Amino acid sequence: MVAEFDLIDRYFRPLVADGDFGQLLRDDCAHLPLRALASDLVLTVDTLIEGVHFLASDPPETVARKALRVNLSDLAAKGASPVGCLLALSLPSSAHALKSEAWLADFARGLALDLQQFDLQLLGGDTTSGPGPLSISITALGHATGAAASQPPMLRGAGRAGDLLCVTGPIGWGYLGLQVLQGGLDLPEATKRQAIQHYRLPEPRLREGALLRGSGTVHACMDISDGLVADARHLADAAGLACLLDLAKIPLAEPKLDPVAQITGGDDYQLLFACPGEAAEAIMTQLEQGAIIGRLTQGQGLTLLDADGNALRLAKEGYVHAKP
Amino acid sequence: MVAEFDLIDRYFRPLVADGDFGQLLRDDCAHLPLRALASDLVLTVDTLIEGVHFLASDPPETVARKALRVNLSDLAAKGASPVGCLLALSLPSSAHALKSEAWLADFARGLALDLQQFDLQLLGGDTTSGPGPLSISITALGHATGAAASQPPMLRGAGRAGDLLCVTGPIGWGYLGLQVLQGGLDLPEATKRQAIQHYRLPEPRLREGALLRGSGTVHACMDISDGLVADARHLADAAGLACLLDLAKIPLAEPKLDPVAQITGGDDYQLLFACPGEAAEAIMTQLEQGAIIGRLTQGQGLTLLDADGNALRLAKEGYVHAKP
Repeated sequence: MVAEFDLIDRYFRPLVADGDFGQLLRDDCAHLPLRALASDLVLTVDTLIEGVHFLASDPPETVARKALRVNLSDLAAKGASPVGCLLALSLPSSAHALKSEAWLADFARGLALDLQQFDLQLLGGDTTSGPGPLSISITALGHATGAAASQPPMLRGAGRAGDLLCVTGPIGWGYLGLQVLQGGLDLPEATKRQAIQHYRLPEPRLREGALLRGSGTVHACMDISDGLVADARHLADAAGLACLLDLAKIPLAEPKLDPVAQITGGDDYQLLFACPGEAAEAIMTQLEQGAIIGRLTQGQGLTLLDADGNALRLAKEGYVHAKP
Repeated sequence: MVAEFDLIDRYFRPLVADGDFGQLLRDDCAHLPLRALASDLVLTVDTLIEGVHFLASDPPETVARKALRVNLSDLAAKGASPVGCLLALSLPSSAHALKSEAWLADFARGLALDLQQFDLQLLGGDTTSGPGPLSISITALGHATGAAASQPPMLRGAGRAGDLLCVTGPIGWGYLGLQVLQGGLDLPEATKRQAIQHYRLPEPRLREGALLRGSGTVHACMDISDGLVADARHLADAAGLACLLDLAKIPLAEPKLDPVAQITGGDDYQLLFACPGEAAEAIMTQLEQGAIIGRLTQGQGLTLLDADGNALRLAKEGYVHAKP
């Protein structure tokens, strides 16, 4: 145990912010000065468990980066920029499952890369050891800056009837990546690499989130982590509304092998948002890959429409016309 | 799985702060307004794993409360008062280990009790399910208020040579409680209950921590979670100093069955602090159970002294004179 925690000291301590920020001199607490905050604090925590949220075969660098990025994606959905994070790492204690020093070194290197890339501080953390699989719980702290700071956060439940539903980019890359990694999908080498990259290293849409909040016109926003269909339903439910999705308007990751799987598969991390029609048009001119894909209406539940405006019914085997 | 998360919704959602604080309408992020903060933010995260940090037989109410209290104890050591927390709960997914609805209801009730008792908000959280044992990771946020707000946090590594080492109360209750629960210790019923209470429901020394920081005279402070001997060594190491402990001056939980086990056993959660001699005397008049137990000196390592000032050597089997 001592040796294990020595390793952690060796690989993680150098990453922890020092000076005025962070966890000084092996303290149990971290410190974040108020002057570092440009607005109210936005906080999120997400846990990733090996075998559940990532594959045991995923490289340690990308495991660390994904664990951070899924949290940054939550901040992005509130138009917030990252300030800092805390890492709670639970390592498997059994000799069989014990991560090697090389694994920890690679994990720490991946984390360091993304701390730098997304300009946030590792403020502190806790490391434990137990009988379970590797588990990574990251708490991320953010604030709104620039134009976003003077606008309210885009709460999940703040959509209004009549709002258009939009996404910041193509849907289904996460699904394709997982399929490739699980051996169920044969694609050209370059596409395979691209799909795996999307699954292992999702891109938190921080620029887009800040732009949406800064516009002052977006009512509701969330990141798509459970799949577009499930999350559109979550966004509508939270507002006590129904949503209509136009299947033909949903931008899909290429190749469009299985549209239903792509719009129901998870791990996408594009943003889904609701805003009035005139605002949506203005926003689309600023988003390279954005699309208007549906709308919120009175009622409840989710309806998927085909190109002719007929309702499709999502079933396990695919989608079928609701009224044949 | 759906049913399980419905349960979580049922039992935890009502605890989450609403309105301006907290996680609104099933959002992925929580919100903490800057005006809620009286000073720079103090943050800490601690993970408790079933079978490692608490016993599977511990009541769910006290498991929740202990998971919160060990974090509040870290805040106390920096003289900070709790503001809010985030809860990352990982539940075992196997049918055998799955926690019953009653277990979750009791856990949530325990958490609610302590949120009220210690006047902090549950801001949000995340729930996952995996093959491992129950794991609870709490991130706690605090700030310094009153007299403490104008004093610097008492960093673990800020002790100075010549400082006296002090504790806020008796040492070894955690050890006695664990021994009673593991059946290795027969005590009168009332003492048993008291020992178990200390183990399962440690008291975060928030009042004492605020008093120490507010005094402006305490250089270094930490909570005693790994055992007094280990933590005194941690405090001295962090300052690049040595420490001397006077065994006869260490206040012990009664009965003093095994002093060495009591000063080396964990789960105590009294505060250990370092300050100049004149300040220590003044502070002792304000602490009901405080004691001066040693001092920091130039050098390195920990020395335990007997009543005559002779060095004792701690060994697995107990302590012996270093120079017989």
